[in-house]
Amino acid sequence: MRMIRILFLVVSILFSSSNALTQDFCVADVKAVDTPAGYPCKNPAHVTAEDFVFDGLKMSGNTTNIISAAVTPAFVAQFPGLNGLGLSMARLDLAPKGVIPFHTHPGASEILVVLRGAITAGFVSSANSVYVKTLRKGEVMVFPQGLLHFQLNTGKSHANAFVSFNSPNPGLQILDFALFANNLPSSLVGATTFLDLAQIKKLKGVLGGSG
Amino acid sequence: MRMIRILFLVVSILFSSSNALTQDFCVADVKAVDTPAGYPCKNPAHVTAEDFVFDGLKMSGNTTNIISAAVTPAFVAQFPGLNGLGLSMARLDLAPKGVIPFHTHPGASEILVVLRGAITAGFVSSANSVYVKTLRKGEVMVFPQGLLHFQLNTGKSHANAFVSFNSPNPGLQILDFALFANNLPSSLVGATTFLDLAQIKKLKGVLGGSG
Amino acid sequence: MRMIRILFLVVSILFSSSNALTQDFCVADVKAVDTPAGYPCKNPAHVTAEDFVFDGLKMSGNTTNIISAAVTPAFVAQFPGLNGLGLSMARLDLAPKGVIPFHTHPGASEILVVLRGAITAGFVSSANSVYVKTLRKGEVMVFPQGLLHFQLNTGKSHANAFVSFNSPNPGLQILDFALFANNLPSSLVGATTFLDLAQIKKLKGVLGGSG
Amino acid sequence: MRMIRILFLVVSILFSSSNALTQDFCVADVKAVDTPAGYPCKNPAHVTAEDFVFDGLKMSGNTTNIISAAVTPAFVAQFPGLNGLGLSMARLDLAPKGVIPFHTHPGASEILVVLRGAITAGFVSSANSVYVKTLRKGEVMVFPQGLLHFQLNTGKSHANAFVSFNSPNPGLQILDFALFANNLPSSLVGATTFLDLAQIKKLKGVLGGSG
Amino acid sequence: MRMIRILFLVVSILFSSSNALTQDFCVADVKAVDTPAGYPCKNPAHVTAEDFVFDGLKMSGNTTNIISAAVTPAFVAQFPGLNGLGLSMARLDLAPKGVIPFHTHPGASEILVVLRGAITAGFVSSANSVYVKTLRKGEVMVFPQGLLHFQLNTGKSHANAFVSFNSPNPGLQILDFALFANNLPSSLVGATTFLDLAQIKKLKGVLGGSG
Amino acid sequence: MRMIRILFLVVSILFSSSNALTQDFCVADVKAVDTPAGYPCKNPAHVTAEDFVFDGLKMSGNTTNIISAAVTPAFVAQFPGLNGLGLSMARLDLAPKGVIPFHTHPGASEILVVLRGAITAGFVSSANSVYVKTLRKGEVMVFPQGLLHFQLNTGKSHANAFVSFNSPNPGLQILDFALFANNLPSSLVGATTFLDLAQIKKLKGVLGGSG
Repeated sequence: MRMIRILFLVVSILFSSSNALTQDFCVADVKAVDTPAGYPCKNPAHVTAEDFVFDGLKMSGNTTNIISAAVTPAFVAQFPGLNGLGLSMARLDLAPKGVIPFHTHPGASEILVVLRGAITAGFVSSANSVYVKTLRKGEVMVFPQGLLHFQLNTGKSHANAFVSFNSPNPGLQILDFALFANNLPSSLVGATTFLDLAQIKKLKGVLGGSG
Repeated sequence: MRMIRILFLVVSILFSSSNALTQDFCVADVKAVDTPAGYPCKNPAHVTAEDFVFDGLKMSGNTTNIISAAVTPAFVAQFPGLNGLGLSMARLDLAPKGVIPFHTHPGASEILVVLRGAITAGFVSSANSVYVKTLRKGEVMVFPQGLLHFQLNTGKSHANAFVSFNSPNPGLQILDFALFANNLPSSLVGATTFLDLAQIKKLKGVLGGSG
Repeated sequence: MRMIRILFLVVSILFSSSNALTQDFCVADVKAVDTPAGYPCKNPAHVTAEDFVFDGLKMSGNTTNIISAAVTPAFVAQFPGLNGLGLSMARLDLAPKGVIPFHTHPGASEILVVLRGAITAGFVSSANSVYVKTLRKGEVMVFPQGLLHFQLNTGKSHANAFVSFNSPNPGLQILDFALFANNLPSSLVGATTFLDLAQIKKLKGVLGGSG
Repeated sequence: MRMIRILFLVVSILFSSSNALTQDFCVADVKAVDTPAGYPCKNPAHVTAEDFVFDGLKMSGNTTNIISAAVTPAFVAQFPGLNGLGLSMARLDLAPKGVIPFHTHPGASEILVVLRGAITAGFVSSANSVYVKTLRKGEVMVFPQGLLHFQLNTGKSHANAFVSFNSPNPGLQILDFALFANNLPSSLVGATTFLDLAQIKKLKGVLGGSG
Repeated sequence: MRMIRILFLVVSILFSSSNALTQDFCVADVKAVDTPAGYPCKNPAHVTAEDFVFDGLKMSGNTTNIISAAVTPAFVAQFPGLNGLGLSMARLDLAPKGVIPFHTHPGASEILVVLRGAITAGFVSSANSVYVKTLRKGEVMVFPQGLLHFQLNTGKSHANAFVSFNSPNPGLQILDFALFANNLPSSLVGATTFLDLAQIKKLKGVLGGSG
Repeated sequence: MRMIRILFLVVSILFSSSNALTQDFCVADVKAVDTPAGYPCKNPAHVTAEDFVFDGLKMSGNTTNIISAAVTPAFVAQFPGLNGLGLSMARLDLAPKGVIPFHTHPGASEILVVLRGAITAGFVSSANSVYVKTLRKGEVMVFPQGLLHFQLNTGKSHANAFVSFNSPNPGLQILDFALFANNLPSSLVGATTFLDLAQIKKLKGVLGGSG
């Protein structure tokens, strides 16, 4: 038996030498410079179980704001263990009448599961067709990559959902912020959206945009 | 104004003709023959919001079984709207001491969020390192593609989690089933796992395997 | 010499048998059912040079409409030879003050080259930063995948550009059409965009939307 | 024990129902119409171990020809089990002075291992640098995707190698055949290669080309 | 109204913190060390609209050379904004009788649009079939990845085209340069192409090759 | 002629400037920090033919161990020239009764060719079906990505095979090592595999595991 053990250790060393540099994962070194495929890897020797666990979605986001809602992301920037693994999550909290306004994720499809309350969710296709449905606890909806979609609390109580993405970095472009929360000149917004100037200036005012 | 509307309708037609065949999504026609990239698409003209919604994860799976647990999948076979969209989900239910035994997903990484109870989850890397952690409500863990992992209810009450995958068809290979629930001859199992023959025959007996 | 020829023919047959089914390309059979990776292939024996050539971008699109502009696509639906090859094109024509309003391509990045006139083009990032530039003949601009962008003729004469995409099916979601040219209820548009109801109804009227 | 077995069978059914449609593989139905991602799948219920085994590389190819060499492919057309799995192989046999002339694989990188004899292999990069090396038994060389490369028997005995590709359908474009073994007019070959017309006509004669 | 603004700013901060590290793009830091997925990213805080615009294709390339033609690339090395975005462009200028000789792009398919003159373009498939067509202004042709192709001015005036690729780094291997413009020994060129030694030495002389 | 040469040199410079930074390959600088897409590239100016050749598979691995077998990898860690090229190899040596025990490659499919002896190889699918076959010299078998498989010498003499993978870093997770060669507590192994504690402790003893 002792002989067997020794022999096995030889094998063990043989295999482990080949495995030593094997990349099963690549926990992000978020202080290093990003690349198109994600961040350089943290030294695998220093990786622990903690790197693969994230507790930032435990608590409800603060919904005391004008949208009465919060998006709490667990993207690679918040959860470095996701780097290179091709997925991420976020938590949605919506007070009654709360809304995640029309937005897109340029880099991923999304799948949503409702945990509490009633959420009316929908997306619009390239053919301008509308797909809307009110979802309750345990119901799941999928949103194809890059399409405009929204989530709205149409129940009477707080609502809560988890969403997952097939990218560690799905991106998040909120329509109102893209149009009204920056220095894009109002005249240019008007020319490219056909919205009235008064409407544009009103929302720029609310959202802190200029121009 | 009427003139404007007419002109816009012209544009509308112009654009929609280009969009008519645009593929934002490809709801599976699961009765058609599968391809390496997924199922052929259901006619987009017949697609409705229902195709993007799945209610099969609403209810707890039946945990009255030897593992005291259940995996309820929302893969493309169950939820055709996922076809081609690059993600899927499943629901885990674990009675006290329930376990999702060691398994792999050959085609996807996994991200898990605990909704109820305490789940001890872990995976083993190619370098044979072990990453284990006990997770509670709202905590998230990621499992890199193809690696052996498990989930075990180590709390006192029922536990429940949702998992997401970056493939509509992640696959699921449960170690015990792969080894003991088929006709792979016991001698071959022994030669390729170093398990004792008695152990193999015992588990083959329990799991309905032959040989 | 004759012997050599005969021997070479043998080789030729040898090689060509292996090549007979080689898929360098997969011209779309657009009447067949689409798949997530594109259309089934036209029989290679019937493929000719014509399948790889498209003349639908030769002529200016009709710009006598409210946006004073036209987008003419050469996507896989119009140009089946692109199927499976990972790219496509479109032609933009803009009369003075013409505009391609804010839009996204859910499935591709875009590169644009101006052929005539002056085009002010821009996109907004997920971080809500604005990148705008006026381009003249021969100048090139790139638009990252899935982000809102626009093109506006800010010169005094007609303008014209060609754009290319890294997908045979990039999709095209025009913001105004997605919001106002369908049956998405005005109240829902309001709740998810913060636009005033009057504004919404006005644009729904112009664009032929209902609800 | 009987109870346990029954319970486990319940689990087994539960899991297997989710697995029934899981696509671990997609053996090609080569009589069906190809798609950009490969052939539609043979019915998994009819798939056996035979589908994953190929014996067409057992024997040396016939090297009694002008190149004194043979390429025997195990691509998806010959070995349908490779469909969708992302790799393939081929066997090279070279009599003394035999050569696999300059060629490319448009869709894959290649890795070669010499089993017998001495093979001088090389490739040219986009920067026109030449990487050439004489390989002996057990030595391995890699050829980056799409670059011109060759293999030449520079030993005194027969040589033999196996090559693998990271595509089930790597393609194979042999330079001489592309230029001289079809109906591309000699004048066009001359204008696009700067080869002398006499040279072109000579090789067209040998290779059975016309024009 | 003031309250609303304050609340919205809260939301704005909430969202922008999640967006701060979102990678919509990754402008190349071309002085950093390249990776298989492209260059590390320039600091997003220093990125401006200029990074996404390229004016190097405005002017005709110099066609006063033996091929009477010029290829002007806008690949990632010239246009760092393309890094990670999956596409690139180039400009072709051809004096009368000018030619872009037989070449391949190992890493991308190509789509070409003629802007001026008449260009006869063609490619050869793995099955040695020839697809040739004379294109005029506004006509588009696609060339599948990795296949040998050429462009020839067969009109009476200067010709000009733009080409796009589905990679920021498509590569460019010109057949004559690969064979004759380096130190690959003439005897090896002969053995691997069946060209006559005199022909090889003549072209090596013209193209500056040695050996 | 001299004029022609000069003109061609001009072209040469023109083209080579565009090619100077073209990335046909990216030989790993294995001392640099890894990224999700592979290692940063060695300076192309220092790359030679040696970088693309590997002689570490020439010799049989040492089979004097308990499995009577050896796996010798040529993954990116051993063969840096593979970096970014999408494939790798390994050599299997099996003394009589030698075995490569049940294992998976999380990141790649595998294709195997037997060079000597008789190897019984098999894999198990997600549906728990078994695909087993005894292979002889020249026979090829493919193993789909991520599935449990094994190779066993069932002949009377030494056996030898080469395997290729469609990733430069396929990973290698050997079941016995994952379960028994680390500090995963025996009770946890028992709970997640249903193996008896005595069996677990026995194999942990042999394989050097603790807990």
